[in-house]
Amino acid sequence: MEFRSDVTVDLIKHAATDTDVASAARVSTIGGESRFTEATEKDAGLINYLMRDRHGSPFEHTSFTFYVEGPIFVIREFFRHRAGWSYNEESGRYKQLQPVFYKPADGRPLRQIGKPGKYEFTAGDYKQQRAVSGDITRISTEAYETYTRLLDLGVAREVARMVLPVNIYSSFYATCNARSLMHFLSLRTTDETAKFPSFPQREIEMVAEKMEDFFHFHMPETWAAFQRNGRVAP
Amino acid sequence: MEFRSDVTVDLIKHAATDTDVASAARVSTIGGESRFTEATEKDAGLINYLMRDRHGSPFEHTSFTFYVEGPIFVIREFFRHRAGWSYNEESGRYKQLQPVFYKPADGRPLRQIGKPGKYEFTAGDYKQQRAVSGDITRISTEAYETYTRLLDLGVAREVARMVLPVNIYSSFYATCNARSLMHFLSLRTTDETAKFPSFPQREIEMVAEKMEDFFHFHMPETWAAFQRNGRVAP
Amino acid sequence: MEFRSDVTVDLIKHAATDTDVASAARVSTIGGESRFTEATEKDAGLINYLMRDRHGSPFEHTSFTFYVEGPIFVIREFFRHRAGWSYNEESGRYKQLQPVFYKPADGRPLRQIGKPGKYEFTAGDYKQQRAVSGDITRISTEAYETYTRLLDLGVAREVARMVLPVNIYSSFYATCNARSLMHFLSLRTTDETAKFPSFPQREIEMVAEKMEDFFHFHMPETWAAFQRNGRVAP
Amino acid sequence: MEFRSDVTVDLIKHAATDTDVASAARVSTIGGESRFTEATEKDAGLINYLMRDRHGSPFEHTSFTFYVEGPIFVIREFFRHRAGWSYNEESGRYKQLQPVFYKPADGRPLRQIGKPGKYEFTAGDYKQQRAVSGDITRISTEAYETYTRLLDLGVAREVARMVLPVNIYSSFYATCNARSLMHFLSLRTTDETAKFPSFPQREIEMVAEKMEDFFHFHMPETWAAFQRNGRVAP
Repeated sequence: MEFRSDVTVDLIKHAATDTDVASAARVSTIGGESRFTEATEKDAGLINYLMRDRHGSPFEHTSFTFYVEGPIFVIREFFRHRAGWSYNEESGRYKQLQPVFYKPADGRPLRQIGKPGKYEFTAGDYKQQRAVSGDITRISTEAYETYTRLLDLGVAREVARMVLPVNIYSSFYATCNARSLMHFLSLRTTDETAKFPSFPQREIEMVAEKMEDFFHFHMPETWAAFQRNGRVAP
Repeated sequence: MEFRSDVTVDLIKHAATDTDVASAARVSTIGGESRFTEATEKDAGLINYLMRDRHGSPFEHTSFTFYVEGPIFVIREFFRHRAGWSYNEESGRYKQLQPVFYKPADGRPLRQIGKPGKYEFTAGDYKQQRAVSGDITRISTEAYETYTRLLDLGVAREVARMVLPVNIYSSFYATCNARSLMHFLSLRTTDETAKFPSFPQREIEMVAEKMEDFFHFHMPETWAAFQRNGRVAP
Repeated sequence: MEFRSDVTVDLIKHAATDTDVASAARVSTIGGESRFTEATEKDAGLINYLMRDRHGSPFEHTSFTFYVEGPIFVIREFFRHRAGWSYNEESGRYKQLQPVFYKPADGRPLRQIGKPGKYEFTAGDYKQQRAVSGDITRISTEAYETYTRLLDLGVAREVARMVLPVNIYSSFYATCNARSLMHFLSLRTTDETAKFPSFPQREIEMVAEKMEDFFHFHMPETWAAFQRNGRVAP
Repeated sequence: MEFRSDVTVDLIKHAATDTDVASAARVSTIGGESRFTEATEKDAGLINYLMRDRHGSPFEHTSFTFYVEGPIFVIREFFRHRAGWSYNEESGRYKQLQPVFYKPADGRPLRQIGKPGKYEFTAGDYKQQRAVSGDITRISTEAYETYTRLLDLGVAREVARMVLPVNIYSSFYATCNARSLMHFLSLRTTDETAKFPSFPQREIEMVAEKMEDFFHFHMPETWAAFQRNGRVAP
């Protein structure tokens, strides 16, 4: 049994630069072919204009493929993103799931205050922390032991898995473009400068933050324009 | 605690007839406006031609909205369908989940034989049946009691739910068109006449079969053409 | 030969009410089934909250099917809208196109001032008006006469049509949901209260305005929330 | 004035290999991370299995960006492909269009025989060939001269372009994945081995054939599986 309080996000491959965006956009005003390779000084200004006036399509000629490990309750939220996202996930029908479970780290706020859409979270007291940690450890362990016992009895994986809790880890590949990634980031991160506030669960935000790091690194001008324009996806 | 071995599928509303398909298709060859209301004798032949030659777009001018209750492991598979599907699901962050859990009915095959993509399922023996039934009851009960105890302690719903197993029920609305519905049916049902075989888990097939009944009832000619042409979505 | 300066937009059928939106949203916080029929006093407030915080999915459980007649240069822009839109258009391969052409009305601004993305349009002078009207009439007429002459010679429709100008009318059906419709309206209309300005060509805005009238009529609370929140599609 | 009878299709960039498909698929059965780089002998067999049983999602973790030049009547058909396609096209509002027009090559069949969906095309006679060539030259030339005269008078580009015929060339970037590309190829090419016949206009098939060459070159096993399984997109 392994308990984790983090998520894994690796960038497997990408075909995504700021120049891709600028080159795609210039076909509108200049026409003809550019090779998507020559960055120019004017790219940054053009990208900012596209972001501000919500010309979203030039941002789609880019591609990121991520590998993610996270608990099922996070993956459930992630896969609600449909447009511009492709997924392949580990299957509980085709393989035995590994005994890796999510348990919140000590600092994770445990109390929820306020109304739906405006929740605030505060630290749990000692009793709450202990209960969360103990109960998650206990239920995860019991469930996994039951799972393996059913498998040992010859029960099909797709049936035995029914006892597993939603904090068990799964893994998946996700491919997206910069536009769909920004849409995801705008909804699954919290940021004081965001024009439209979002209230994601902390665990999916952990995935989003790691993806944003890769995005920031590989498309710095696009990221800067996203940030400057209130984190509204174009 | 409630244990169910079935799923709920209700058709909430629909705007979908065979005539919609034929009317939309006729704009290609005749042009101009038809009112989508006058069914003609030629509709069936036209629909069959569209299905056979995979002219899919005329089937999209239709709309079905379903209400579904099923276990999370089914919903996870369902929401992988992206194109032409819209979803809203009960939230474990916004409300307390109800103590309703899936437990396979007695006849549900429990043994899996063969390789991935060609699994066959056979009935479980008495020992397997008893283990599945007993373990699912026990784990579900313990998990739900733990869940409510954590809630009583003031732990946030989004944290407390982490102990719940994937056989807990959730509910959602799904809206689709006839084309996306046929694509779903082609992948999530088994049928001897299907040109391309599929191997869905029985529990999602139970949802698919109920949806197909509504589809069959409201779009009989489209359904017949789907069946006649090997259940290949156009 | 017929010259038009307007567009046709008819609502063929719809399954779309404000209550659909509110009912779909309530599954998140209440769960269980509602029949999508009982409007309540609280619907308007809920819809406004969904719009403001960009919870877009509840708006997707709605369906509008429009019939549109307009010139090809408008249809080309329209069909760039992909997500949530379905189309079937009159075919120049399957039928002879009718001699109906777009010619701007007298008041249509003819001069373009400023840079891309910030164009302003002003009225044309007498000379420009006369040239536009005369040239469009002449070229359309010549092109259509050539088209019919080629058809009379036995040339295939798909070849003969190559001489026809982009101001010839075509007709199509378009089906969308309220979310994709609002996205279209936010980009293809101009409105002083819009949070993000758009610069559509006047002719596609004419289509958008007619669609907005139907949307406003059938989903008044959703339309009001759209307007109140700066015409940003959720 | 330039008259062309061909189309341009360049592959601008790609992130697409057979190994991408196999690696994405293996997450289902093996789980965990692979680096998408190590091709194995078993890739070809796995890819063929995925194609045959229509497991389409692993083919989506790939990306091709094409630059295309073709006449507007071809682009109109192309942009009907929505799922998995991104586009940016030269704009007749933002720039003056160049005087490049499509004229069928001498061998292009000009006669259409049979019913919709089963057209056959045969060579034109001398009179037809001469009429097509002469009329297209004449109308294209007149239209373009009128276009430039209107521009010289100060008429806005978006108005002046209304006189231009649908055989004028435009240019665009298109980004897709291998799955959406195969769907396009299955509908826009003719091939004797295809399980489902298609009847594309020759000019869009010319674009499709060039795209297929790039696809074949960069993903040879995927292409072979596509071919072997009747050119049905998974």
